[in-house]
Amino acid sequence: MTAYDTDNIFARILRGEIPSHTVHEDEDTLVIMDVMPQADGHALVIPKSASRNLLDAEPMALGAAIAVVQRVALASKAAFAADGISVMQFNEAAGGQSVFHLHFHVIPRHDGTPLRAHSGQMEDQDVLTANAEKLRAALAAL
Amino acid sequence: MTAYDTDNIFARILRGEIPSHTVHEDEDTLVIMDVMPQADGHALVIPKSASRNLLDAEPMALGAAIAVVQRVALASKAAFAADGISVMQFNEAAGGQSVFHLHFHVIPRHDGTPLRAHSGQMEDQDVLTANAEKLRAALAAL
Repeated sequence: MTAYDTDNIFARILRGEIPSHTVHEDEDTLVIMDVMPQADGHALVIPKSASRNLLDAEPMALGAAIAVVQRVALASKAAFAADGISVMQFNEAAGGQSVFHLHFHVIPRHDGTPLRAHSGQMEDQDVLTANAEKLRAALAAL
Repeated sequence: MTAYDTDNIFARILRGEIPSHTVHEDEDTLVIMDVMPQADGHALVIPKSASRNLLDAEPMALGAAIAVVQRVALASKAAFAADGISVMQFNEAAGGQSVFHLHFHVIPRHDGTPLRAHSGQMEDQDVLTANAEKLRAALAAL
């Protein structure tokens, strides 16, 4: 496997070198909004420990991450009045991965609404700010 | 949320009422081949404890499941000479879920090969048997 690149964008966000729309942060995990959401409210759960993806992750880090994924899924369903939640975790480019630091996608879904394609188009910053606030409030209310 | 249906197909497989192509079984988890694979080698990690999906799962069950997901992902990459692995976990019909017992999809991916659509077409049983054997062997060799 290719080595972990310490300058990937999530590593830079974790170091505070790049801003993000933070939803939640604890000792092990950062939760932010995806800036190219495939549905409104698309969030990312990012373990702080350095691993390229699931294939080289510490099992301990995974346990902490999946617990946060569950809480974010519950909050997302409430915050965005979602009918369902899709969780996706991609490994290597062939697996759908584009940033090479382990992360889980948590995407609120509505009946009859397919996921948007990865357009490469950044979402409006105000929309991301508003959705982060909704998700934070729903997490606090769990 | 709708209540857990004890007659869902994975509950029946866990009770041994329906056969499956078993890859791995331990105290907490069953791993089987998906009978309508979106790529050759598509496997399912199924926690034994009863929950409809991630939204009502016991956090303890999730930790055990994600550790097995990691091992199956590593084995899948080796068994099917995959370039990447897609992990997906769907919640409620709007989220992509079709069997209402918590499960994780572990799908080996190859560069340039998109996932097949859910066709509703059962894979040939001999192919599933052969892929289960490949995945079992790769798990044993981890």
